[in-house]
Amino acid sequence: MTNPDFRPISGVDLPRFAGIATFMRLPHIALDDERLSKVDIGLIGVPWDGGTTNRPGPRHAPRQLRDLSSMVRHENGATRIRPYDLANCADLGDVGPNPADVEDSMKRITAFYDRVKAAGIMPLTAGGDHLSSLPILRSLGRDRPLGMIHFDSHTDLFHSYFGGFKYTHGTPFRRAVEEELLDPKRVCMIGIRGPAYDFEDRDFADAVGIRVIPIEEFHARGVEDVMVEAREIAGSGETYVSYDIDFIDPAFAPGTGTPEIGGPNSFQALQVVRALRGLNIVGADMVEVSPPFDTSGATAFLGITVMFELLCVMAEIIGKRRGTN
Amino acid sequence: MTNPDFRPISGVDLPRFAGIATFMRLPHIALDDERLSKVDIGLIGVPWDGGTTNRPGPRHAPRQLRDLSSMVRHENGATRIRPYDLANCADLGDVGPNPADVEDSMKRITAFYDRVKAAGIMPLTAGGDHLSSLPILRSLGRDRPLGMIHFDSHTDLFHSYFGGFKYTHGTPFRRAVEEELLDPKRVCMIGIRGPAYDFEDRDFADAVGIRVIPIEEFHARGVEDVMVEAREIAGSGETYVSYDIDFIDPAFAPGTGTPEIGGPNSFQALQVVRALRGLNIVGADMVEVSPPFDTSGATAFLGITVMFELLCVMAEIIGKRRGTN
Amino acid sequence: MTNPDFRPISGVDLPRFAGIATFMRLPHIALDDERLSKVDIGLIGVPWDGGTTNRPGPRHAPRQLRDLSSMVRHENGATRIRPYDLANCADLGDVGPNPADVEDSMKRITAFYDRVKAAGIMPLTAGGDHLSSLPILRSLGRDRPLGMIHFDSHTDLFHSYFGGFKYTHGTPFRRAVEEELLDPKRVCMIGIRGPAYDFEDRDFADAVGIRVIPIEEFHARGVEDVMVEAREIAGSGETYVSYDIDFIDPAFAPGTGTPEIGGPNSFQALQVVRALRGLNIVGADMVEVSPPFDTSGATAFLGITVMFELLCVMAEIIGKRRGTN
Amino acid sequence: MTNPDFRPISGVDLPRFAGIATFMRLPHIALDDERLSKVDIGLIGVPWDGGTTNRPGPRHAPRQLRDLSSMVRHENGATRIRPYDLANCADLGDVGPNPADVEDSMKRITAFYDRVKAAGIMPLTAGGDHLSSLPILRSLGRDRPLGMIHFDSHTDLFHSYFGGFKYTHGTPFRRAVEEELLDPKRVCMIGIRGPAYDFEDRDFADAVGIRVIPIEEFHARGVEDVMVEAREIAGSGETYVSYDIDFIDPAFAPGTGTPEIGGPNSFQALQVVRALRGLNIVGADMVEVSPPFDTSGATAFLGITVMFELLCVMAEIIGKRRGTN
Amino acid sequence: MTNPDFRPISGVDLPRFAGIATFMRLPHIALDDERLSKVDIGLIGVPWDGGTTNRPGPRHAPRQLRDLSSMVRHENGATRIRPYDLANCADLGDVGPNPADVEDSMKRITAFYDRVKAAGIMPLTAGGDHLSSLPILRSLGRDRPLGMIHFDSHTDLFHSYFGGFKYTHGTPFRRAVEEELLDPKRVCMIGIRGPAYDFEDRDFADAVGIRVIPIEEFHARGVEDVMVEAREIAGSGETYVSYDIDFIDPAFAPGTGTPEIGGPNSFQALQVVRALRGLNIVGADMVEVSPPFDTSGATAFLGITVMFELLCVMAEIIGKRRGTN
Amino acid sequence: MTNPDFRPISGVDLPRFAGIATFMRLPHIALDDERLSKVDIGLIGVPWDGGTTNRPGPRHAPRQLRDLSSMVRHENGATRIRPYDLANCADLGDVGPNPADVEDSMKRITAFYDRVKAAGIMPLTAGGDHLSSLPILRSLGRDRPLGMIHFDSHTDLFHSYFGGFKYTHGTPFRRAVEEELLDPKRVCMIGIRGPAYDFEDRDFADAVGIRVIPIEEFHARGVEDVMVEAREIAGSGETYVSYDIDFIDPAFAPGTGTPEIGGPNSFQALQVVRALRGLNIVGADMVEVSPPFDTSGATAFLGITVMFELLCVMAEIIGKRRGTN
Repeated sequence: MTNPDFRPISGVDLPRFAGIATFMRLPHIALDDERLSKVDIGLIGVPWDGGTTNRPGPRHAPRQLRDLSSMVRHENGATRIRPYDLANCADLGDVGPNPADVEDSMKRITAFYDRVKAAGIMPLTAGGDHLSSLPILRSLGRDRPLGMIHFDSHTDLFHSYFGGFKYTHGTPFRRAVEEELLDPKRVCMIGIRGPAYDFEDRDFADAVGIRVIPIEEFHARGVEDVMVEAREIAGSGETYVSYDIDFIDPAFAPGTGTPEIGGPNSFQALQVVRALRGLNIVGADMVEVSPPFDTSGATAFLGITVMFELLCVMAEIIGKRRGTN
Repeated sequence: MTNPDFRPISGVDLPRFAGIATFMRLPHIALDDERLSKVDIGLIGVPWDGGTTNRPGPRHAPRQLRDLSSMVRHENGATRIRPYDLANCADLGDVGPNPADVEDSMKRITAFYDRVKAAGIMPLTAGGDHLSSLPILRSLGRDRPLGMIHFDSHTDLFHSYFGGFKYTHGTPFRRAVEEELLDPKRVCMIGIRGPAYDFEDRDFADAVGIRVIPIEEFHARGVEDVMVEAREIAGSGETYVSYDIDFIDPAFAPGTGTPEIGGPNSFQALQVVRALRGLNIVGADMVEVSPPFDTSGATAFLGITVMFELLCVMAEIIGKRRGTN
Repeated sequence: MTNPDFRPISGVDLPRFAGIATFMRLPHIALDDERLSKVDIGLIGVPWDGGTTNRPGPRHAPRQLRDLSSMVRHENGATRIRPYDLANCADLGDVGPNPADVEDSMKRITAFYDRVKAAGIMPLTAGGDHLSSLPILRSLGRDRPLGMIHFDSHTDLFHSYFGGFKYTHGTPFRRAVEEELLDPKRVCMIGIRGPAYDFEDRDFADAVGIRVIPIEEFHARGVEDVMVEAREIAGSGETYVSYDIDFIDPAFAPGTGTPEIGGPNSFQALQVVRALRGLNIVGADMVEVSPPFDTSGATAFLGITVMFELLCVMAEIIGKRRGTN
Repeated sequence: MTNPDFRPISGVDLPRFAGIATFMRLPHIALDDERLSKVDIGLIGVPWDGGTTNRPGPRHAPRQLRDLSSMVRHENGATRIRPYDLANCADLGDVGPNPADVEDSMKRITAFYDRVKAAGIMPLTAGGDHLSSLPILRSLGRDRPLGMIHFDSHTDLFHSYFGGFKYTHGTPFRRAVEEELLDPKRVCMIGIRGPAYDFEDRDFADAVGIRVIPIEEFHARGVEDVMVEAREIAGSGETYVSYDIDFIDPAFAPGTGTPEIGGPNSFQALQVVRALRGLNIVGADMVEVSPPFDTSGATAFLGITVMFELLCVMAEIIGKRRGTN
Repeated sequence: MTNPDFRPISGVDLPRFAGIATFMRLPHIALDDERLSKVDIGLIGVPWDGGTTNRPGPRHAPRQLRDLSSMVRHENGATRIRPYDLANCADLGDVGPNPADVEDSMKRITAFYDRVKAAGIMPLTAGGDHLSSLPILRSLGRDRPLGMIHFDSHTDLFHSYFGGFKYTHGTPFRRAVEEELLDPKRVCMIGIRGPAYDFEDRDFADAVGIRVIPIEEFHARGVEDVMVEAREIAGSGETYVSYDIDFIDPAFAPGTGTPEIGGPNSFQALQVVRALRGLNIVGADMVEVSPPFDTSGATAFLGITVMFELLCVMAEIIGKRRGTN
Repeated sequence: MTNPDFRPISGVDLPRFAGIATFMRLPHIALDDERLSKVDIGLIGVPWDGGTTNRPGPRHAPRQLRDLSSMVRHENGATRIRPYDLANCADLGDVGPNPADVEDSMKRITAFYDRVKAAGIMPLTAGGDHLSSLPILRSLGRDRPLGMIHFDSHTDLFHSYFGGFKYTHGTPFRRAVEEELLDPKRVCMIGIRGPAYDFEDRDFADAVGIRVIPIEEFHARGVEDVMVEAREIAGSGETYVSYDIDFIDPAFAPGTGTPEIGGPNSFQALQVVRALRGLNIVGADMVEVSPPFDTSGATAFLGITVMFELLCVMAEIIGKRRGTN
């Protein structure tokens, strides 16, 4: 049984529009809080868009995701998973980036996740732009390369931008492969689409063995078939899940910096996460939600709902370890 | 042939952006108007959100639905039904709620519908939040329980809120079953989804025999198959249709208080109504449109288009009775 | 010197867009926190609009005010007051209302403020609609009637609504006078304007001796002259400050339920607060901010800036008591 | 005493968000209604922007003005005029323009106002773009030229556009002078400002004796002084009042097609109307509200509040005639 | 190989948010520019909504489409076509309409396209409302009737409006057939849906042999099957492509004047264009984008992405002629 | 007389909503265009927000300012200056920043302005955040320190951020004084207000002799009196004008990253520029317009109107030199 200290406030006790907004209405446990050691899954904000090359905004995402998370209740209607019965969950607060220095920001993020990892906590991250994933992987994948299931409209495997700059939201996984944080043979990228200047990213993917499933193939084969393959690629090894909100079609997720037309609908957006059950997940992120381009909060609501699905899958792993599932 | 007094103003005579906004540009016939007895189908507004537990707004829906209804023309392009040739239709105005008193408001609504029923008029309601359906059913279902086709993401079958309060937009159909306004064996709920605090609502449904078709089943089976079953459940008895706009995915219907991710698209939203042809419908409602969360009017436009489809199905019933179809 | 535990996080340490949103980035101290006894000024949210007769929304205000409060820094540029050097400040969280029961909600609010008062904390409230002020005054004014400076476009002195209902956002100060929570001779209402059904509220004001300064007089005399009179009316006795955001012209504060044209501008909105220095203030509120009618946050930003000015005036009182000013 | 049939619905009886939206919640009296002869003041919509040269939209204004008019109550807080006690008021509906033909539209408008004039009704118009004023004046000023007080940022005295086209929203008063519908010596234009291609309009004003008070002079002299002069210019003869919403600064009235920076604030916007008391007004209009550029409704709310002030001034004239004032 | 002068600026050289907005960041070549003769495909704006009968706005579309076109890169991710390697492309600027005169505007448009045709340039147009297509066809189809693939929710085959007016956005293709600019036997209309006053448009289609594929058939058969038929209808003759943004469901394309519920999703919106490969296209347009009803730019982004797909198909034709494909 | 090549397109020839958006509809003259040498005043975009510490967005400003500049006509209604008769004006395009490197971006900007200066062109800049002013001054003030009139709510004289980072939008004028690009004795800052972490910026101002006029003094003294002093401070030497849009109250200019409550209104915003006539201005900028926080364009419209006033003052200088004024 989980600790009653690590459960969300119920909307029956305090209406959902009330109260200080934490992720899922969970308690806020700072890294220096003595209760940290009891946390199984930590929700963490990375309010940073230092890697954004076009339209900025994801630095504002963690706060809006926290706000909208009050709309999400406790038991999953589709899978009937009750994550807070399976795992002690908490909001670990935000990593403080340095808006003026990309490299310093990445160091701060990696250091934060090292402390989280040291406490034995599985992190579920609310980015931030997609460059956020790199410093996280530098912590989680430092000891051995991870597999990865990556939902996105872009591969984020480009080499560099603006005449050689190597750290943008278009490059994190190129770096992560180069730094041996990811095992490319165990990486599957799903939903890739849209025009590009060129496709050297896909040439790189082919060269190192990353499987890219473009959106045309996704729509033709359907969620179930695609996810069977994805699970096979990731295998039983430790796996990271990176979910860029622009994976989903912009009618469903307008609030993002580089949308691409023709993506999955919102039901498919949830189905792909449910299909991750059984994988050996060690961490996950939801990135590229951009509130300035979505003042209604519709994108953040979709984003936090996907995060709840990720949380359910992750809590099930904890529950199985404990034998409480 | 229908009475020329009960037809909408044509956009060819008066441009659609012009004129005082009534439902479908129909004449406004107040309950004390002598022409009331000639009306077959009455469109009624219930500007009330006294049952809303989270984000208020549906009190503003009837007005926005009237405004957007100017966009809807006279003949159904899919079914070729011309409702105004089949039935005398009118805007009966709004029921005046008491914003400060839930029980008084429900009494006012029931009293209004009693007069409508006494005049032999079939009501098509623009709510209001979903609690609106309860006082309507107290009129329409008083003499014998009705069947119901219910499109929604929530069952609205919960027992109570906030420590025992029994009248919210999450409880109307629990009350309606308890009060024997609905025959649970003839009730089918379609599109149910999303996280919940618990699922005692579904336990209740199972206990009394309400058929709940969750969204996962809906997507897997498709509209046609699901609606065959729904029609069988309702059977040939008198049936009410309750349509919560949050049945539809929030990308199509953002303007609502408690959206749930992963719903049907807008084409399916129309198809399910067309599949109601042939049922013995005695009334219908469209609820939970919330203009403050949808200033563009997109949700109201979708809502009023669904109402036009409902109107077509209802007018066909009138037409068949008259032999004018 | 104030306790370092009760200071806001600086934007130099953690960028202002980062972190869980509390009022002014202050620590969250729940009522059962042992540090409560050290708090001098408590910022409290009352997310409630149970008294709203027209367009609901203020239930969402505390959360948006917290979010925008990150934009406000530590030292007042006009008065050079540094409130966090003068008083221990904290975010005491939200009072949980009962959305389904006005009277129960008022009891909960009064009980919360009784605990705050018992801890010797001066409350600065973020409403809620204006009915929020009544249960607060039932705590603060229980022992003896208070004076009040009231900034608003409405007197909120009406008798009742909808056929006798006595508790709406148009009646709180009628009730407060009747219940002897306010001393009408020491009450001054500033900025009153707009059409009404009738003016029985002003007849009541005249009868009991409340001074009403309509907006025409405000604009003709100017801030300084009006505020001299207001201070004289309140005198040296204990005084409450109630600030309805609709005091300010709707071009500056669009996000409110019952705006009235022709109000003060934003500079005057701040000046009137600065003119409260020296009064014996025992509590203050900012009410009627309505986020659904102001998705950009402009109104909340103005509201929280006014709250910061109120906080400066209140902290100065604490500072003088301590001799640290 | 006025006829009880011609009074607005009170928000105490029916909440202000409820009911079919007519101007000021007044009864809708069509031109063929037998009650027409009892109407003193008729509120009329002209949903037409056939004269717009840049950003269209005013065709949608009457509907949005009707919607927001529910926010306006019955007694003027500043002047204490109760218009519905002084005059029988009604919503006469909209004139139906021909969106495809400017000249035909103008003929329809003039014909409508001829019927209104024949019924002895004083018209208060909700446009439409400013060209709307011309066909109205063709009815009201046909028998003898009228004086005019004109609030605007533009003179609308230009000769022609796009190579000779004489009927746009920049030309109505040039035509009205040419057609001897206006007596230029009795015309005063207030608030004129902004860049232009050239100022041949002002040369024309000078040539025919129209008094133009630019905004710089308005701000320097103040409302009171300017309005004394304006009243003198109009004198005791029959006078029309034309109020373009772009007279007001765009921060207060963003929803308009050709805003100009630096206008009056909202309090001045009301003051100038109150200063019209005592003039011999025969009709008035509020034009150029453009809902597509103001989805929040703030501009329409300001516009309808100005219309209420105009209505008060007009009702006072009726009241004086009847000796009921 | 194409001329380096006719290529877009790369976002690697100049960030995509920077620079004067031309279509696709291509060079602006005015009709009197000596480089005109080298252009293969010209992107042209027709900022005109003189044919709009309900909600105006498309006059603003070319500018917003240019702005959003910066988001679109150079190589098609699905078809791998690189249009700028195959054809010299340029932004030819806007045709200047006469907002006050429909017929004069049409003459100006036809004259502009005559010059484009004389220069041997294939035009890709950003309208404008759908009446824009008529004056374009008067140029392109003058010598012999064209075939047409028409994506839309309306046939635009109506006879006349408002008592006989023959030139609106509901009539262009009726006129084009009457004027023998189109060969009705080679015209296929796809996606038609929604209520109408009557269906004389479809009677006309049947009479002259135009193939209308309603949306119900489209959804039932799927994109591939429908497009096989469409290509057969158009055959190998010269064919125009007209793409009304309201073909797509309003959740994906809200910014349009007369949306209809139940359309294709965004992926299908692209698929239908890719299925045009191999046709003998002589020109194409994207019409009815209406920025005032879509301030976020989502509709324009979808519209310009569809235009990029059209450009790819057209460039492939040029490339094949040159043998460079 | 000015060259007809350097005049805006008139809205009489091409409607204002039409055409590719350049600043003021002027011709686009790239730096390598042979006509560059004839340009007197160059309007330049700096789409860059690399110095922004809180809410990003000004990188999008030049494009939105260009779009809205179509609304501004040719002759100043207040001063009757016709800038295009006095000076050859052109849009010189945007400087391309490096979004990933602050220092490289500054070098690119300085290099661009060096070329502009070498061509003898007076630059009028549309930023960009306020750090943009530093690299511009590095070009314009390289040879000798300039005077400056600075309109803003912040001094932008802070030393550093985030632990020593010296280049943000809060530091440009500290750097400019240190680098001897500005003569602090000839610098006047107007409108300063709002809370701060501390006021070391003002201590610096005092130490070096910069005159800071806080908003309280501005409102108390009035525009005229303040501007007399400002002109005296700048004197007859070469002077730069820097205008931050957040000088103006956020009700008028909501679209900016760090608004401060209580600023001047829009009329004063124009008056202060008109009061610059006669100064020896060598360049000017308008910075901190942030489109993502102002999707309606109201802020950009105000910003471009201020730029037109600046252009008038600058053109008058050119005209006087030429003797054509």
